[in-house]
Amino acid sequence: MPSIDLNCDMGESFGTWTMGNDEALMQYISSANIACGFHAGDAGIMRKTAQLAIQNGVAIGAHPGFADIQGFGRRNMQLNADEVYDICIYQIGAMLNVVKALGATLHHVKPHGALYNMAAKDAKLAQAIAQATKDSQADLILYGLSGSLLITEAEKIGLSTASEVFADRTYQNDGSLTPRTQPNALIEDTETAVSQVIRMIKEQTVVSTDGNIVAIKADTVCVHGDGTHAVAFAKALNERIEAEGLLVKSI
Amino acid sequence: MPSIDLNCDMGESFGTWTMGNDEALMQYISSANIACGFHAGDAGIMRKTAQLAIQNGVAIGAHPGFADIQGFGRRNMQLNADEVYDICIYQIGAMLNVVKALGATLHHVKPHGALYNMAAKDAKLAQAIAQATKDSQADLILYGLSGSLLITEAEKIGLSTASEVFADRTYQNDGSLTPRTQPNALIEDTETAVSQVIRMIKEQTVVSTDGNIVAIKADTVCVHGDGTHAVAFAKALNERIEAEGLLVKSI
Amino acid sequence: MPSIDLNCDMGESFGTWTMGNDEALMQYISSANIACGFHAGDAGIMRKTAQLAIQNGVAIGAHPGFADIQGFGRRNMQLNADEVYDICIYQIGAMLNVVKALGATLHHVKPHGALYNMAAKDAKLAQAIAQATKDSQADLILYGLSGSLLITEAEKIGLSTASEVFADRTYQNDGSLTPRTQPNALIEDTETAVSQVIRMIKEQTVVSTDGNIVAIKADTVCVHGDGTHAVAFAKALNERIEAEGLLVKSI
Amino acid sequence: MPSIDLNCDMGESFGTWTMGNDEALMQYISSANIACGFHAGDAGIMRKTAQLAIQNGVAIGAHPGFADIQGFGRRNMQLNADEVYDICIYQIGAMLNVVKALGATLHHVKPHGALYNMAAKDAKLAQAIAQATKDSQADLILYGLSGSLLITEAEKIGLSTASEVFADRTYQNDGSLTPRTQPNALIEDTETAVSQVIRMIKEQTVVSTDGNIVAIKADTVCVHGDGTHAVAFAKALNERIEAEGLLVKSI
Repeated sequence: MPSIDLNCDMGESFGTWTMGNDEALMQYISSANIACGFHAGDAGIMRKTAQLAIQNGVAIGAHPGFADIQGFGRRNMQLNADEVYDICIYQIGAMLNVVKALGATLHHVKPHGALYNMAAKDAKLAQAIAQATKDSQADLILYGLSGSLLITEAEKIGLSTASEVFADRTYQNDGSLTPRTQPNALIEDTETAVSQVIRMIKEQTVVSTDGNIVAIKADTVCVHGDGTHAVAFAKALNERIEAEGLLVKSI
Repeated sequence: MPSIDLNCDMGESFGTWTMGNDEALMQYISSANIACGFHAGDAGIMRKTAQLAIQNGVAIGAHPGFADIQGFGRRNMQLNADEVYDICIYQIGAMLNVVKALGATLHHVKPHGALYNMAAKDAKLAQAIAQATKDSQADLILYGLSGSLLITEAEKIGLSTASEVFADRTYQNDGSLTPRTQPNALIEDTETAVSQVIRMIKEQTVVSTDGNIVAIKADTVCVHGDGTHAVAFAKALNERIEAEGLLVKSI
Repeated sequence: MPSIDLNCDMGESFGTWTMGNDEALMQYISSANIACGFHAGDAGIMRKTAQLAIQNGVAIGAHPGFADIQGFGRRNMQLNADEVYDICIYQIGAMLNVVKALGATLHHVKPHGALYNMAAKDAKLAQAIAQATKDSQADLILYGLSGSLLITEAEKIGLSTASEVFADRTYQNDGSLTPRTQPNALIEDTETAVSQVIRMIKEQTVVSTDGNIVAIKADTVCVHGDGTHAVAFAKALNERIEAEGLLVKSI
Repeated sequence: MPSIDLNCDMGESFGTWTMGNDEALMQYISSANIACGFHAGDAGIMRKTAQLAIQNGVAIGAHPGFADIQGFGRRNMQLNADEVYDICIYQIGAMLNVVKALGATLHHVKPHGALYNMAAKDAKLAQAIAQATKDSQADLILYGLSGSLLITEAEKIGLSTASEVFADRTYQNDGSLTPRTQPNALIEDTETAVSQVIRMIKEQTVVSTDGNIVAIKADTVCVHGDGTHAVAFAKALNERIEAEGLLVKSI
């Protein structure tokens, strides 16, 4: 039976502050990208979130970001490739050890926020992240934006990859995301979002904002964990995928 | 031939700031305790310091501390045992991955500063550090103050340990260090310090401030890396040890 | 008409994380202790929270804490008096300027969490906080635990003070708070808590856990801003105080 | 007698780490830009550096930067204008209070590193810094790169400014600095650097790398505090300026 991976950023609480509802969401997804303490999360939250993933049979990924807790890793920072390599080795290593101490294994790496976006368009940063992933554990899968340099550079060094698509974002004719600065960037209707995902999984295509059917590689779907409707949306998406006779399953 | 381990805290620079002279010191020691980014060091410095250790055939240890960069991890912080376990898993994990990416292996763990001192006297904190060390890699050696709870608790769970003594500190009749608040806590004369070390290695005794000969377990000697005479002292100690027909060698 | 000050810790969100419901609470209190970026809050949250206070006619206080965002300033840290003085000057200064830029004035200082608790019992720390408050602006009022060294030391140097009592905590025969480690430390029933406050305001006494009537100085009542019932409790307390013919008003 | 201001970034040590030789340099300069804890410095270092400035009759400035201690504020961070305004209000406020507690007054503001460079070319960031400076204390002088938007935007809102030039950097025909990526960006010969400064002060011109004489506004000269020759250079520059019959004096 064909399957699709639903991934969600998790463990993005920090200290006494809570973000999202990891416990409720965990049952509807197949891959958890757990923050590693640089943009969110801390050593204790990493452990508790990994335990939750294990209990729910969800694959665990490291979710490294820029060292910018206050900005949640969403602000571009001008790091060179060596610096990016080093912060990835550090954060993936911390996550690897959290997972090892719980008797589990690490499954994938997905960079966070500004690091994810910058690496999608910058070959040197993409290469640094891919190399750090490979040097950490050669069989880790690198999650990156479908069609981006992160995927290309990872494949060049023989790393497994997962091309990520978004349920709640619209696409352009060239398969790229509509920039958030444009009014039609977001899909707010659940049914439209779910239908887009089903099409992406089954046909590996998406209907662009211009109405064209565009090819897109969809190995994993990003489900947002924050926002008031996050749990309801994840539940709806999960149920509809299964109703279509597809499996929600990690790669 | 009998041997002794000389260990030194290393990689305690941070960002653009430099501490000590790791490159010069590395040739005189056998174990480097590399800071893990919480009290000092950062991801790039960790990599460079580990490379330096590898080039000099020096065993690499993780040197976790409290999350207090400004205070250099020297200020007591009231963390509970779970929090201490978590920050150790995190920091040791980061170091493990730095070392793995360089094709080397991690040899030991030595807690830093206030964490080291608090754990010496607090069984729960000692147990948390020992468990985190074991869960990270079961054959890691835990370095702790000779005669302290860190050693006792580590042994209880079957971890290898190294009892640490200090070249430049005086000792009490019960084998404990003279508190720094006392005027005679420090040995400032190189020859006296070197002689104390030779005695501790050869005879496993130390002359207390009261003039008594006191038994002490000495597996590893701490050489301080900061201070203007650090390199000269390490060199003198290293040469004298070899002149006595002993080997400077990691455990 | 007799009046009482209701104070609440505010601006304790951080970056993208939210804590409490400052907007709803602000209408029921008279003094806001705004976090200064060390244990919570950041430069933007400070400004927005101060604006909210100004709009609601609430007196603004600086709420300095230990530099421990992850631990929310609740973990004891062993700083000496100079260090405590310096972090207070720094944080109060930042808050002073936020308030000045909004055309308002700073009214008081209340130390946060572990700093508040440690200074209550340590004359040197209390003195450092009081001196930093006076050096920042001589007419600032220092809020401290009723009967604590923070009040005593502040008075010694001629600073105005506000003795703080708690609505939801029980008291001992000597007027001290029942330690949180004891089962009866907290008052969970709203009516009991409100009645205790009314008594403390009107009679300057409290009924201890042993049933004795104990004198207590009550200039300001701490209302907790976190917890699910925080807003409902603040509303109930505010209404009951006014029903008793008392004014809720800053000092 | 005509005068020139020599300014230097100061207080850029952090915690236990030392940078530069503030004590030796202070005697040769007229303005100290003191780091405010975001890119370097901490509350204690700010106080000690301000004391040193007062003892030497040196004007004190706030030197705010991005919140990036590990990167020393040298890495571009994509903050919006509100965020930049807020971090400037916060840092200038902290410095204002340090100075007030010492019985002195704040003289100027000079943004640091990446913030300085980004604001030189981005009108919104420049405006945010200028407004924060004005809102902090209306008579503060804003130091900015000669010919940059920081100067222009500050003047638009009626702030006093100081156009900054560099002793050890070469200039282009349009009066801009030769980018550091070019081989001839730096002047390494002390005599050449000193002569360039004298010309800039006396004639308000500079010889470009193409050999043209170019007009430049020079109110203040930046003297670098790090590097092995920093003190010797500052001394040579100071002596030569006085030998030319000019005064080293703050604005």
